[in-house]
Parts: sequence; structure tokens; C-alpha cells
Amino acid sequence: MSFDWLSSPCAQPDAELAESARAHQLQLTKPPGSLGTLEAVAIQLASLQRTAAPAVDRVWISVFAADHGVAEEGVSAFPQVVTGEMVRNFATGGAAISVLARSLDAKLDVVNLGTVNDPGDIPGVRRAIIAASTANFCHGPAMTEAQLDAALDVGAESVRAARKSEAQLFIGGEMGIANTTSAAALASALLDEPPSCLAGAGTGLNAAGIQHKVSVLERALAQHVTAKTALEQLRCLGGFEIAALVGAYVAAAQAGIPVLVDGFITTTAALAAVSIQPQLRPWLLFAHRSKEHGHVRVLMALEAEPLIDLGLRLGEASGAATAVPLLRLACALHNGMATFEQAGVSTA
Amino acid sequence: MSFDWLSSPCAQPDAELAESARAHQLQLTKPPGSLGTLEAVAIQLASLQRTAAPAVDRVWISVFAADHGVAEEGVSAFPQVVTGEMVRNFATGGAAISVLARSLDAKLDVVNLGTVNDPGDIPGVRRAIIAASTANFCHGPAMTEAQLDAALDVGAESVRAARKSEAQLFIGGEMGIANTTSAAALASALLDEPPSCLAGAGTGLNAAGIQHKVSVLERALAQHVTAKTALEQLRCLGGFEIAALVGAYVAAAQAGIPVLVDGFITTTAALAAVSIQPQLRPWLLFAHRSKEHGHVRVLMALEAEPLIDLGLRLGEASGAATAVPLLRLACALHNGMATFEQAGVSTA
Repeated sequence: MSFDWLSSPCAQPDAELAESARAHQLQLTKPPGSLGTLEAVAIQLASLQRTAAPAVDRVWISVFAADHGVAEEGVSAFPQVVTGEMVRNFATGGAAISVLARSLDAKLDVVNLGTVNDPGDIPGVRRAIIAASTANFCHGPAMTEAQLDAALDVGAESVRAARKSEAQLFIGGEMGIANTTSAAALASALLDEPPSCLAGAGTGLNAAGIQHKVSVLERALAQHVTAKTALEQLRCLGGFEIAALVGAYVAAAQAGIPVLVDGFITTTAALAAVSIQPQLRPWLLFAHRSKEHGHVRVLMALEAEPLIDLGLRLGEASGAATAVPLLRLACALHNGMATFEQAGVSTA
Repeated sequence: MSFDWLSSPCAQPDAELAESARAHQLQLTKPPGSLGTLEAVAIQLASLQRTAAPAVDRVWISVFAADHGVAEEGVSAFPQVVTGEMVRNFATGGAAISVLARSLDAKLDVVNLGTVNDPGDIPGVRRAIIAASTANFCHGPAMTEAQLDAALDVGAESVRAARKSEAQLFIGGEMGIANTTSAAALASALLDEPPSCLAGAGTGLNAAGIQHKVSVLERALAQHVTAKTALEQLRCLGGFEIAALVGAYVAAAQAGIPVLVDGFITTTAALAAVSIQPQLRPWLLFAHRSKEHGHVRVLMALEAEPLIDLGLRLGEASGAATAVPLLRLACALHNGMATFEQAGVSTA
């Protein structure tokens, strides 16, 4: 196997188009800067999409699901069967992300990378089974090199499909009981910060549950102190779905598709991806500040300013999907407003 | 004239429907509370709209435009002709709110209450001219009692039209050169706080300009210390469009239509309206935290938690319009997600 493709160059944002988008914003009938972040987002999208008229009409959402060996340490409020059950719920339309994707007229790509409770073949779910779950990283690496390689490629494959459908925005989401534990372990290793700074309630742990989670994380990190590169930390502490997200983010930037990052787990995947391929960073937009404890620290490490802060902590790409209309309105304003000259409006 | 209608009772939110909406949220396939504010908003809308299936498909946006006598004190970065010019821009589709209303498929109701630069009859603009502008409140009351009465009714009339069109959400916006000065004066009087706490850059004053604005406000407030009721403060320091917003908010709550409040000026109108008719408060949702200096203080006085914080400071209802998709997604999730039982998903 080879991880070389991860270092292939990313597409280049267009600085000239950013400049002309910035100049265009100053011509629109409003006080300069008065649309705040909506202006900044339109300018960024113009530069990334290499167009004077940015748009996010065609949105691709991949939700990667997988189970985690570390679940056996009792780190989640929900039982492990839920991962497989939710895969079915994504496909049959009842999950939050299913409803959001429908509302946004976005493509929802559900990918099963391996669940202990295997829902089998389901229409609308891509089966890309690597194993029933990762190994418990308290005892050894979560993945073999071959498994990591396969998981990264599952993400890249979703981006190839997104590209084929001419998606203007890529969103990654995740589902996997115990995956806030995996993400906290990975973020802790990447940032070299203690697990207590990164472990949160996940799906609903109480204070004692979080304390137990921290002690599990401390054991895991002690086990993997020798993992020094982001890729090796991802292999030892990540999950199949987290690795798929890393692969997807890198592939999206290489393909020139802007990415809207969701919550704690996806932002941790983004941090790993940026560590592996730093050219990726300009391609990332950040949707929301989640309520999960560690998210703020990972956002800070990426110098990310998310669009919304609504106390969400569901995952599944739900926060990113919720922010999509803001991007769409930013584009509509950028493309649709009259200039001072067109409207015959006096300037300051 | 009579202001008695302002004290007529508001519609009552339905506490039982709020309770069953809350119970319904707990059944949906997600960790309890994990959709944060989106859950709270759906529950509030269910209670206000008296339905198990809240919706904001039909949105009514009234933008009230008017000029201000205090503009002659040189308190705005833009010339006064812009108010009338923007009325035309609203109607011809080039303004930010025009683009947003189109994108949202919302009804845009543009109302001219009086501009120094009169754009005349324009298709799509309701003419409800009270005077070319208010009086300069540095020298006397901004409005006569008859003018205040008329302006309040212009707002109520928009709500009657919104009701006729079966609007599920009412949004008020404003346009008027110098109206952050008027709103700062009114907020200062309502909150009994010094103008320096409430005066901001408006459309783009520099530090010296803000300092001048504060000194104008100090003179104005000294002039009107005897105005003790919210209604009298509104008459002495408000504008026609601000009074129209007050009338609209009260009328909307009386008609049982939820209101989404925009930025600094509209929130100040909401504060005046709640002072006049306290039953109004539950009908108000707050869209955004604007960048205009005084907004945070007025939001705090109303114990308001806005949905978004994107550095907007444009007015025109643009912040409220931007937040509409979040309400729509909140409703879609509430109405469209599967329950644990329906989806066969295990609980914690």
C-alpha cells in the first residue's frame, strides 16, 4: 500500500478572483463590510471555485459510519448496536441528516465501513466494509496499515463520486458509537494536550462517565506514545470513519472542491488532514461550534471561525448541513445585489 | 386619536403544545438535546403557532422606510437622499433584503412613511407618507401625537396584510439615514443608560463621528427628560419607521403571528413594544447579534438569545432574513425525523 497520494498537491485558490470579489462587494448597495461574514464567505468561495459567481446549489454529503473497539471500555451513553441501526435510519430517511439533506436538496451518500451490528445490504448505502470494528486502542493500534489505507481510500472514493456529480461543496459526516473517544484521543495526540481538555459528554455521559472516558484515554495515549506522525496517530487512535474523512478532505482539496467541516469529530479529522497535507487548509470552511467539550480547542488549533453556534452536538454532518443555507444566501447576495451605479444610490 | 389598541391582549402561546413538542423531541433518533437551539426553536414555534407541526414556509417581511430630522446634525456616514433611493432599490430588487426575500420565497412589503428625497409612486411600494421626515429631536419631539398614532397604525396595517396572506412568521425591517441615532436615543431613554453605551458606527462613522453622535444624543436626551413612558419616549426620540415596527410587533402578537426580530433598530423597537405591551415578549424570536455597538445591551435587556452572530450591520431585516432557513430546518427536523420506535433504533 502507499500513502503517497496524500502528499500530492492540492488545487490552488485563485487570489485574483478573491481580489475582484472583494472589489465587487464594495460596489454593492450597502455600507462596506456590513454583511460581515457573508461577504467573507462569498469572497472565499469565489476564490476556491474560481468563478465570479460562486454557488453551492449542488451539495454532496457523505456520512461515514463505523464501529470502534474502544466501545468495549464503556465510554458511550448508547449501546454499540446503534451504529448499524443508524446506518439503516440514514438510508430510510429518518435521521437528522436525512431530513436536512432532503430539505437542502443535497445528495446524501451513506457509507458503511464496518459495524458490529451489520445491517447488511441496504439500498442507498455504499458497503465498504473494512472490519466489524477497529481494534480497542487501549491494547494496540486501532487499525493495521492496510486498514488505514483502505479507509482513507473510501473517503477519496466518495469525493470522486462527488466530483462526478459536479458538487460545489463537500460535507463529511460521521456515525460511530464511541467515536468522540477516538477523536479525543487523536486530537490529544495531535495537539499534545491532556485528554481532559478534549474529552466531553459525547452522546450524553454524566460527569463520572466523562471521568472514566478520560482515564481510558490516558491509558490509550500511554500505549501509543511512540506514534509521532499524524498518519501514525490516525492509525493508532482513529476510526475507519475518521480516516475516511481525512482521505475525503485531502481528496476534495486536490480536486478543488470546497469543504464545509461539521463538529468535533470531523474537525479533528480536518486537523489530522491538515497536519498530513498543509495545502488543504484554505479549502476548509467551518460550519459550527459544537457543544462537545473539545471542539473549541481543535477549532482554535486550526484558527477556524465557524459560522454558527447553536449548541448542536449530534454529528452526522448535521451542523454543516444546517449552515449550508447561510453559504447559499451569501452567494445569492454576492451575485444578485445591485451596485450603487446600477441602482442609482449615492455613496458615503 | 387613541393608543388604547396597544393594550389589547396578545394571543396566548399554548403551553400544552410546547410540552408535547418537548416530549416529541425526546423520541426522535438523536441523543436528547443534541440539536440544541434547533429543538428549542421548534418547540417555541409549535407553542406559538398552536400546532404539532410548526412551519415557516410563508414568511412576511415588511421594510419600513422614513427620514429623520436629526440627520441635519451630521450623524450619518451617508447622505439623506439615500433613504429614498433605497426605497426604489428595495422595490426594483437590487437591495440585500430584495435578494434575500427572493431567495427565501418570502413576501417583501416595502412601506414608505416619508422621505425627504421622495421617490414618488413605485410599483411594489406602499405609500403611507406621514411627513417628509420627523422633526429634529434636538429641538423638540420627533413626532406629534397624531404622527405617532399614524406610524403605529402603518405597522399594524402591514400585519393585517400579513395575516390575510396567512403568514407564519412576521419580520420587520427598516431603512432611514440617521436611524441608529434615533434608536440609540430611544434605547438610552428606555434603559436609562448613557448614550455612549448605545451609540455605534451606524453605516460607517469613525471614532470622531461616533463621539459627535454621542454629543448630539446627550443634547437630545437632556431636551426630553420629561418623557417618562415608553410611548412618549418613542414619540419624542423615535422615527416613523421605528414606530411602525412597534405597532407591527404589538399587532403581530395580538394576531398570534410569531415575530423574528432583526438588528439594533428593530430590537430597540421591540424593547419599546414590550415596555408598552409586556404580553408581547413570548412572540419574539431574535435572529442575530449585530455588530452595531448598542445591540448587545438591548438584547440583554430583553434576555434575548439570537440565533446567529455573523458581524452583520446592514438593517433592512437582512439579519432576520438570513436566519429564516435555520427556523425552517428546525421545523423540518421536528416534523420529519423518525422516532426511536419508528426507526428501530436502541436508546441509551
